[in-house]
Amino acid sequence: MNISVLGCGRWGTFIAWYVNKVGHNVMLWGRENSKNYIGLKENRKNDYLTLPEEIELSHSLENAISQAETIIISISAQELRSFAKRLNSINEIEGKTFVLCMKGIEADSGKRLSQVIDEEIGKRINIAVWVGPGHVQDFVRNIPNCMVIGSDDVEVTKRLASELNSDLIRFYYGQDMIGNELGAATKNVMGVAAGMLDGLQYSSLKGSLMARGTREISRLVRAMGGNDITIYGLSHLGDYEATLFSEHSHNRRFGQAFVEGQTFEKLAEGVSTVKAVKELSNMYEVELPICNALYEILFEDKNAKETLEDLFLRPVKFEF
Amino acid sequence: MNISVLGCGRWGTFIAWYVNKVGHNVMLWGRENSKNYIGLKENRKNDYLTLPEEIELSHSLENAISQAETIIISISAQELRSFAKRLNSINEIEGKTFVLCMKGIEADSGKRLSQVIDEEIGKRINIAVWVGPGHVQDFVRNIPNCMVIGSDDVEVTKRLASELNSDLIRFYYGQDMIGNELGAATKNVMGVAAGMLDGLQYSSLKGSLMARGTREISRLVRAMGGNDITIYGLSHLGDYEATLFSEHSHNRRFGQAFVEGQTFEKLAEGVSTVKAVKELSNMYEVELPICNALYEILFEDKNAKETLEDLFLRPVKFEF
Repeated sequence: MNISVLGCGRWGTFIAWYVNKVGHNVMLWGRENSKNYIGLKENRKNDYLTLPEEIELSHSLENAISQAETIIISISAQELRSFAKRLNSINEIEGKTFVLCMKGIEADSGKRLSQVIDEEIGKRINIAVWVGPGHVQDFVRNIPNCMVIGSDDVEVTKRLASELNSDLIRFYYGQDMIGNELGAATKNVMGVAAGMLDGLQYSSLKGSLMARGTREISRLVRAMGGNDITIYGLSHLGDYEATLFSEHSHNRRFGQAFVEGQTFEKLAEGVSTVKAVKELSNMYEVELPICNALYEILFEDKNAKETLEDLFLRPVKFEF
Repeated sequence: MNISVLGCGRWGTFIAWYVNKVGHNVMLWGRENSKNYIGLKENRKNDYLTLPEEIELSHSLENAISQAETIIISISAQELRSFAKRLNSINEIEGKTFVLCMKGIEADSGKRLSQVIDEEIGKRINIAVWVGPGHVQDFVRNIPNCMVIGSDDVEVTKRLASELNSDLIRFYYGQDMIGNELGAATKNVMGVAAGMLDGLQYSSLKGSLMARGTREISRLVRAMGGNDITIYGLSHLGDYEATLFSEHSHNRRFGQAFVEGQTFEKLAEGVSTVKAVKELSNMYEVELPICNALYEILFEDKNAKETLEDLFLRPVKFEF
């Protein structure tokens, strides 16, 4: 099959590498003047992997769309709306399948990424998401993982899973777009919190963080109309190993650097997600103590140590 | 208050140290000829901590029972039945409160530890459990955690939590004995599985293990009449950090040593729990794929790598 991947950051480039490895014809698109694109064009590699020659690199969005039936998007979540407007101006998108391989929620609106793209594209397209655990650094060393593909159309889900499945990535069919999208985005919030606990020498409280983090996001998903059990699946709890415990996790490393007073240069999407979830907490009237504590620390200058101690080491009470 | 602690292994000795620190009069009991007891008697310390002078050491079970209203038991789970028979022969136990600070299920019968003690003691006593995350090695370095105290009598639960609460251990009231006892015991099974994944260079699959492990135990708890959400609380999921990711976890280290062909000397209670859970799986007709895979590996000589690959890297399917 012809598959295009839009976005050539760490994940986009890995996806192109992976989809080619699985046996498809791949075009990888990037912005002509982006550092990642220029680097790949010159060396055909980045910090993580080398792209095989048969993967075509292109900076023409029209080309990338017209050559493929399935288009995988992996760009910064907060840029999806403006990017979707650009996609909408391309005629050939009609009837194609777009797979969002990114974890975030629109910060200003609290909207899920599939909603954002759906709102901006006026033509009939299929929208799917690809979420779940795994680090590029592990996959390129042939360390397997299980991930999730979901859409509102089970036939689309099954087709994509069958096209993309391999020994390296085992796909499960996602059954709940709300739960999987919320779960994938908010695990980054828990990653930031985990990093803060690590930085404060409270790593042992990551157990409590897991128990209480899943619970509050589960409540939010239910309030939003999703299935509260989805959060305990691969998209959220199943991604905690990779997010709360791994050296590779940008969100965890951001949280740790934050409490240690260091700067951390890589994108920590969890920070935008904290903002988005604050919106959702108000909108759906659901209390989210951990997300709220992160909001106060990141955006209201509350002291991280005191705020997290207050959260995790409060007086005795019922657990549920 | 006068509190006795029965059992002077790693946990029992820590509990005596902790309960004394919280402000109670403590007697610590051990078998006269046990290595741990002899060591403490001679040096007043073990590998983890030094006992303050005011903690009385005794090898007389009668003394330990008669001097306290609250008695905390921390011995090997599989020895609880014979120990309870011994306790039953002591007249003064009537009306006292026994707190089980141990994680296991009777291997032959699948019975919870509170059931075992209840069956063996013919007099009216209160039975409570103290479970949840935390390593002795962390606590003695003043690293706090949250734990759970539960019983069938909420007044007993509240009294114990209030007597034992401190800045070092924050107690929550457990509301589900079945869920908390099953959760505490079976997290050790997941710890053994995590160690096997670590040993096989599949640490990245610990995310899937968390998602699927909680789910199957949750199903079992529901079948047994408990609350399926308890498993996502401190006694099980909240203990995964300490069990699946910590260097200190005996069960994780046992699992890793097992697949690496090494021997591991410390008690890995998870191995007995695997047997017990096999019983429960049959008794309640609940499928427990992870527990069952562990049973096959540990007791039926199945190859660990193949069995776990088959479990985690199976064909595509629905997640729930």
